[in-house]
Amino acid sequence: MKIFITGGFGFIGSKLANALSDAGDDVIVPARKTSIPCTKLRDNINVIRCDSYTDPAALSSLDGIDVIYHLANQYTPADSNINIVHDVNSNLVNTLQLLSAAKLYDVRRVVYVSSGGTVYGNNAKSLLTEEDVGNPICSYGLVKKAVEGYLHLYNHLYGMEFNVLRLANAYGVCQRLGTTQGAISAFIYKILTNQDIEIWGDGTIIRDYVYISDVVDALVKAGNSDVTNRIFNIGCGIGHSLNDIIDALRIEFNDREVNVRYAPGRMVDVPINVLDISRARSELFWQPHIDLTNGISLTSKWARSII
Amino acid sequence: MKIFITGGFGFIGSKLANALSDAGDDVIVPARKTSIPCTKLRDNINVIRCDSYTDPAALSSLDGIDVIYHLANQYTPADSNINIVHDVNSNLVNTLQLLSAAKLYDVRRVVYVSSGGTVYGNNAKSLLTEEDVGNPICSYGLVKKAVEGYLHLYNHLYGMEFNVLRLANAYGVCQRLGTTQGAISAFIYKILTNQDIEIWGDGTIIRDYVYISDVVDALVKAGNSDVTNRIFNIGCGIGHSLNDIIDALRIEFNDREVNVRYAPGRMVDVPINVLDISRARSELFWQPHIDLTNGISLTSKWARSII
Repeated sequence: MKIFITGGFGFIGSKLANALSDAGDDVIVPARKTSIPCTKLRDNINVIRCDSYTDPAALSSLDGIDVIYHLANQYTPADSNINIVHDVNSNLVNTLQLLSAAKLYDVRRVVYVSSGGTVYGNNAKSLLTEEDVGNPICSYGLVKKAVEGYLHLYNHLYGMEFNVLRLANAYGVCQRLGTTQGAISAFIYKILTNQDIEIWGDGTIIRDYVYISDVVDALVKAGNSDVTNRIFNIGCGIGHSLNDIIDALRIEFNDREVNVRYAPGRMVDVPINVLDISRARSELFWQPHIDLTNGISLTSKWARSII
Repeated sequence: MKIFITGGFGFIGSKLANALSDAGDDVIVPARKTSIPCTKLRDNINVIRCDSYTDPAALSSLDGIDVIYHLANQYTPADSNINIVHDVNSNLVNTLQLLSAAKLYDVRRVVYVSSGGTVYGNNAKSLLTEEDVGNPICSYGLVKKAVEGYLHLYNHLYGMEFNVLRLANAYGVCQRLGTTQGAISAFIYKILTNQDIEIWGDGTIIRDYVYISDVVDALVKAGNSDVTNRIFNIGCGIGHSLNDIIDALRIEFNDREVNVRYAPGRMVDVPINVLDISRARSELFWQPHIDLTNGISLTSKWARSII
């Protein structure tokens, strides 16, 4: 198949690009002129240097593409709330331009990475199914929901297939260290650079963490599956608090000091968010293989090796 | 109170502006330089001539405003699907700029006119409550849903109050005749100008029609109510098919020929859409007073008087 991946230089996208390339697919990745991939891309992946995936050079390369994986996203959830108009322009309007070009070139399917952590808002259910609703408390989540809606619309109007993966908190080897995104990587970086870990709130915030190889596996399945026009939660289906993460890291880094400072909570963080993944299990025949202890261990060993 | 109304030169907005002015409110209406109001506005209404409600001249007049009524909308549901990117730019991004200015000027409340006819998508429930969900089959409905989401977000982040009215099909005296929007007005215009009425589909499409004075009453209540941060369906709660409308018009215009041509159905039209209005009844203390027969009679008499 011919595959086009936005965000193909990112943490998830670069692993996905290599996985698809290794499986024999022709992979095209538009990428900013100055950026470097998280993971070195296979030599036979076609990188198109451009300012945005909406540049003519990128969009015209959709000719003959079977599946678009749309992963690119500007802004973290917290940053999206202080850049609302630009968030909508760069993430919703640009996506609509991508869909418009996809229709023009008769692309068969779009696999979209949505956000299990934000689209359900403050829904306090202990295990969230894809049918649950909520009011997102960040623009990031509102844009993801809107894109999901436009994928439905394109399917209704033009028969373009889609699958949406609402990801839990992805983490693992090659996630950028030293940024504020991704608690596990951020915490590991602080430990390895002898800094205090700062936690917003009291550390009881519960999230669902899913390891990178499991995410890539779900993405590949969403692109190949006979089941289409569906939304799938992709997580572990198990909740862990930030303090649980700290406990696991203290065991992993028993040769290091692990100091935690607690700061006031943020408006953008919901107290609990754990995904029911039974639909992905039964319809995509997917399941997570790496649990939190294993995933933290793998990620920590890798981080030690590069810092 | 000081009130700002977008779309204040439109069918609903002009009636609302006069109603609020008559009730003693100070009313500001931004309006395009070339447009004329549907209903002549009271002399004491402050009209700001500008290209868009997002022009600095319009947004700076939000200083001291208590309530924004946001009614302006470009594109019909059908047109929105052939102008998706521009629909999002002109209706979602512009609304977000309005909300950003509203926050800057500490506007207390936003009353937003959403769409009971499109946000529920193809949901086949016989009576739709505000909690029902669906996938809109037009960009118009997706944008309305997105704006509802951003109103929640602004409330969450900044405490800005909102009320959303999901309107059924509004009609009545002063609705523009001779356009494709508003089946009742469009049909009356065809009859009075001796043209065939064209119906997309077989005429069995069922809609909820609500008379203009009832809509204005609901808007005024949504601006004044102690109940805030709520979504309300505003309709009659009763479904009528297009063929029912034709039957009522044949009685009203028994001195005229009423010819109907049936054309193929459109992708944008859901088969049935009737709103459960019990929340508005119980929480806004609102109810519709003009039924379809009465409303058609009032509208027809007015139309006869001007054509």
